[in-house]
Amino acid sequence: MNERPAPETFPVTPRNRAKRLHERAAYDRDAVYAVLDAALLCHVAYVIDGQPYCTPTIHWREGDWLFWHGSSASRMLKNQKAGLPVCLTVAHLDGLILARSGFHHSANYRSAMCFGTARIIDDPQEKAEALKSVVDRFYPGRADILRENDPQEAKGTMVIGMRIEEASAKIRSGGVSDDPADIDAAVWAGVIPVETRLGTPEICPKVPDGVTYPDHLAHFQDGRRLDEVLTQSQALYEKALERS
Amino acid sequence: MNERPAPETFPVTPRNRAKRLHERAAYDRDAVYAVLDAALLCHVAYVIDGQPYCTPTIHWREGDWLFWHGSSASRMLKNQKAGLPVCLTVAHLDGLILARSGFHHSANYRSAMCFGTARIIDDPQEKAEALKSVVDRFYPGRADILRENDPQEAKGTMVIGMRIEEASAKIRSGGVSDDPADIDAAVWAGVIPVETRLGTPEICPKVPDGVTYPDHLAHFQDGRRLDEVLTQSQALYEKALERS
Repeated sequence: MNERPAPETFPVTPRNRAKRLHERAAYDRDAVYAVLDAALLCHVAYVIDGQPYCTPTIHWREGDWLFWHGSSASRMLKNQKAGLPVCLTVAHLDGLILARSGFHHSANYRSAMCFGTARIIDDPQEKAEALKSVVDRFYPGRADILRENDPQEAKGTMVIGMRIEEASAKIRSGGVSDDPADIDAAVWAGVIPVETRLGTPEICPKVPDGVTYPDHLAHFQDGRRLDEVLTQSQALYEKALERS
Repeated sequence: MNERPAPETFPVTPRNRAKRLHERAAYDRDAVYAVLDAALLCHVAYVIDGQPYCTPTIHWREGDWLFWHGSSASRMLKNQKAGLPVCLTVAHLDGLILARSGFHHSANYRSAMCFGTARIIDDPQEKAEALKSVVDRFYPGRADILRENDPQEAKGTMVIGMRIEEASAKIRSGGVSDDPADIDAAVWAGVIPVETRLGTPEICPKVPDGVTYPDHLAHFQDGRRLDEVLTQSQALYEKALERS
């Protein structure tokens, strides 16, 4: 789906141009992809009869295409062969910024906003591939050890896809930014880091004896950062796609 | 702002009724507040000229009112005295569900979607209170040790507020849900927990000697869960409001 040669940078239009400049904005694919690929959870905004909805869901990426699991937007999409404009956003919280003034309190974060036209993936072959991808993109190699989806399951799962038409990434990192006049205040100022990590895998008690933690989950190690693990999954997944 | 006696449950309408039933949906204030109060980061969906936007930002709650920092919606709101319909959503990722079939792969999460009409908080007194609240709601007692915002800072900070008109919470927790026919498959199945925790506070190197980590941040302890810390902050903040 990504055969068009892609320039390194997304076009910048009034829709995706950053409105506030004190954080670093980027429009290049590498910056946007890095934020997207480090996450499983995204939020999708869409409009039904003038009412905005913001739905959290699971997303995955192949080139400039984003896919996600259906939501109440599905009802709308069924009647919209031309597709529906959406904005898919991913945000990672990296730290709390405690400043010497209320004004300079902030947060460290990495976010990406992606604009495009969402369509239901209903071609049976395309949909079967997407349902395999959603497993293999997060757990590369796992789809092959699972049974195939039966027709009822494929029917009961809604996959939505869009090509990213415009996108932007925004990142705030580093320490507190205070007014020079406030620096000598006797106030604790600094950063409290925030990290999202994996816990200890909990095997389902009904798994037959002798089944051990599989190689394809080896990088899902207790205590590792989720963003690093998911980025590694994406790289492994893309490498496997190249080989196939 | 929350003088209207509030029933325990938000009204259920086509806008907030859960569309998929295999996760637990709730419409009571306690369930919705618990999800909101455990987070700093939210996503706000709004519409400009038919185009949906999904903006990550910092939110805080007082009773049935939600507040957040301005975004590109601000431009739109300036011309909309009647307010703008928005959907503010919070989602926490709690675990990865690895099932014996692709279909039953899932995630544990807690989410809340809140619908209302957003307005710019531009009354000077109301805005000053909101700018104090955004510090004290997260770091109760901190606003009093900071200097006041100067008029330029107050002017340069956009605060948006809305009363929650409708809301719903959705929660998936627990283990993997597989088809009975798949239970004996020789496949590792289970849950990989995901947790967001605080790291070690990093003091700004320019803080004067003798300033130590303050009491009002005592519950921001290295290694604690962010959701628990923020829930505790909200409780401390509400208790302080009652006393004042």
